[in-house]
Amino acid sequence: MRSGVRCMAAVSSMECVKGVKGVILDMCGVLYDSGEGGGIPIQGSIEAVKRLMDSGLILRFCTNETQNTREKFVQKLRRMGFDISVSDVFSPAPALMRILRERGLQPHLLVHDDLIPEFDGIEMNSPNCVVIGDAADRFSYENLNEAFRVLIGLKKPILFSLGQGRYYKETDGLKLDVGVFMKALEYACDVQAEVVGKPSPEFFQSVLRDMNLQPHEVVMVGDDLVNDVGGAQRCGIKGVQVRTGKYRPSDEDHPSVKADAYVDDLAAAVDAILTQKH
Amino acid sequence: MRSGVRCMAAVSSMECVKGVKGVILDMCGVLYDSGEGGGIPIQGSIEAVKRLMDSGLILRFCTNETQNTREKFVQKLRRMGFDISVSDVFSPAPALMRILRERGLQPHLLVHDDLIPEFDGIEMNSPNCVVIGDAADRFSYENLNEAFRVLIGLKKPILFSLGQGRYYKETDGLKLDVGVFMKALEYACDVQAEVVGKPSPEFFQSVLRDMNLQPHEVVMVGDDLVNDVGGAQRCGIKGVQVRTGKYRPSDEDHPSVKADAYVDDLAAAVDAILTQKH
Repeated sequence: MRSGVRCMAAVSSMECVKGVKGVILDMCGVLYDSGEGGGIPIQGSIEAVKRLMDSGLILRFCTNETQNTREKFVQKLRRMGFDISVSDVFSPAPALMRILRERGLQPHLLVHDDLIPEFDGIEMNSPNCVVIGDAADRFSYENLNEAFRVLIGLKKPILFSLGQGRYYKETDGLKLDVGVFMKALEYACDVQAEVVGKPSPEFFQSVLRDMNLQPHEVVMVGDDLVNDVGGAQRCGIKGVQVRTGKYRPSDEDHPSVKADAYVDDLAAAVDAILTQKH
Repeated sequence: MRSGVRCMAAVSSMECVKGVKGVILDMCGVLYDSGEGGGIPIQGSIEAVKRLMDSGLILRFCTNETQNTREKFVQKLRRMGFDISVSDVFSPAPALMRILRERGLQPHLLVHDDLIPEFDGIEMNSPNCVVIGDAADRFSYENLNEAFRVLIGLKKPILFSLGQGRYYKETDGLKLDVGVFMKALEYACDVQAEVVGKPSPEFFQSVLRDMNLQPHEVVMVGDDLVNDVGGAQRCGIKGVQVRTGKYRPSDEDHPSVKADAYVDDLAAAVDAILTQKH
């Protein structure tokens, strides 16, 4: 199937996944919907993950979740019934920790309290960069001013943003995501943030290295057209969008990003991937 | 003096103000520095305003202040010793009220508590636009989410921003200004805000109409290179920057805005204007 052609019948038009050796799955909106008590599995997704694991394909998970450490996040998924290991999950905070260490940077953190343990062991006494994640209620005027003052006081301001999402849905309504506050601080200090996590190419490439596969051998399945599908495609990975989670019908007419295929849900995506494999 | 040529000796190089019939003064950073107890007059500025008033030139004041009603703001200036009338002061909130009435719009307000009386008499039961001002501590995550949900729920989201400043200085440090939260909501909803106040051309034109003068007959004196000087120049008004308030030496090498002249302070600007008048 050619990129840009809308796929009406999921399985038959998933030729784009023919011969893939590996699959990357987004998590929220693909495996589960977030909600009270942590979240609810999307119908058929627990079984679909199990079938992928049993198929011999190389499987990794890729999330922009930054309200929890990766360990706590995986525990939550396991409680829902997903048989997932921490080492198979890629999230922004551990990726950022590698960058901070490589570049010898000390962060000022504006992140969710529950994410802070990810930064254990890094020096923070003389911050020379600012890190923002999905801090939710911690995005107060006071905390934003504090992060701004650190940034504007640096000779060369460095701002890291863990993702660049606009908003997400919780049971009590839509919530502003980290990208909104990234844009705020970018404007305040006239800097451009370095995004860690999807859709950053470095983030997808680190997953590919771990899979030991070439981009064309891999398909990404996600509900976020820009960050999952578009991000993967920019690295040469196939991008399939599921019609669950934050999917909206208008995504299929997006001006700049076209998925290689659209499917109803993860179960349908796995049906197609396994059919094309045989 | 040609635009773009730095003016080292204030009075002698102020030929740009030759023959002007009217003067528009920015307030904070030109008349006074904000600080504890409301602010402190900048040396020589009370006398300079008095000399302008006595000169026969037409004088108006133009501020992006939105933490107070115009009435309360003028009272503060009068307590400092400035002999100013409310009717000579142009601020964003009254300008916005005219726009809301003309277009039959009902606002959802995210503004400072002390600004709310400016909106007396306007219907707000079924908001069909969002208005943000310098809300300071009211820029909480909760209030930003609320404004965002109103905007994203509108068929055609309309966002008004009372100014577009990045930050300002208070006695306890730098504070994020309304423009930062404008950029945040613009990104969240993929809209472009309508800026009311400086540097909006409509705002300067409303001052010109009130003065009954042509743009080339007027000079604007301000400390903000982009919003005062650049905004005025885009309307054909001469723009002079004072080296007080938020002025920084790097302003004189700005890549896109060049003042018609730079002077040390308001007293020096008035010296030059009155010298060129005779």
